[in-house]
Amino acid sequence: MKAIVHVSLKPEVLDPQGKAIARASAALGYAAVRGVRQGKVFEVELDERDEARARAIVAELCAKLLANPVIEDFRIERFEP
Amino acid sequence: MKAIVHVSLKPEVLDPQGKAIARASAALGYAAVRGVRQGKVFEVELDERDEARARAIVAELCAKLLANPVIEDFRIERFEP
Amino acid sequence: MKAIVHVSLKPEVLDPQGKAIARASAALGYAAVRGVRQGKVFEVELDERDEARARAIVAELCAKLLANPVIEDFRIERFEP
Amino acid sequence: MKAIVHVSLKPEVLDPQGKAIARASAALGYAAVRGVRQGKVFEVELDERDEARARAIVAELCAKLLANPVIEDFRIERFEP
Repeated sequence: MKAIVHVSLKPEVLDPQGKAIARASAALGYAAVRGVRQGKVFEVELDERDEARARAIVAELCAKLLANPVIEDFRIERFEP
Repeated sequence: MKAIVHVSLKPEVLDPQGKAIARASAALGYAAVRGVRQGKVFEVELDERDEARARAIVAELCAKLLANPVIEDFRIERFEP
Repeated sequence: MKAIVHVSLKPEVLDPQGKAIARASAALGYAAVRGVRQGKVFEVELDERDEARARAIVAELCAKLLANPVIEDFRIERFEP
Repeated sequence: MKAIVHVSLKPEVLDPQGKAIARASAALGYAAVRGVRQGKVFEVELDERDEARARAIVAELCAKLLANPVIEDFRIERFEP
């Protein structure tokens, strides 16, 4: 199965490049854009049929390889078959 | 409302850093990990209540500011209130 | 002229993806690799011939758009004609 | 020693996020900014005193783990002691 994982800067951490995109959107005339935050998405392909075990593996990977828990949050969005 | 957007390398485009994470996972003993692909996720905050209009704006932003359509795919994952 | 700018995580900020690359290097047999840190490089093309003025502009851009000064350091590496 | 490596999109590959930063710069009043390209910089710490050997290792890492040669160029900028 495949796990879809989001890694985002914690809400209190400034995201200057997200801000640059928001400013560029405004400059292009998209007045409705209030803000942009940029994060990472990981698609993790797993040779594992049990979702609980897959979830445990992916959570460990997040903590060890994918995210910096001091400045980032991670969330397993979903599993795909 | 808030749009959640994924920007991913097209499937035929090599992702060496995703591969590095997969190899590091194997080296750490996570034998179930078959592959990792890394992309970007954008959270776009919009001052717009109509989902169809929000979708149109976000699709234009993707094409102009968020993704390189030659090497990347984008997908509006969902809208949040 | 063109400014080459490095934006790097501050030394005390963990870089899990750099670590993943270092682990993958070891797994591939590159025993000499002790560590890897990943940052961003920006090439800023400027319509400005005076290096002091160019430097002042680029430093402001770093502070406003390119780096998060809480977690990142920036350095203007050099100017190219 | 430490190797400083730049990985940049090939000149013919569009960089929408670099463009967003350039547009945001203009929107902030920095009229001299003509364009911005964003790449990655890697600092590779090596347990190797011979620069020729270090260079060979880092070039292999670039090709295998750091860059996608189809869309990116890499360059070893310099070695630091």
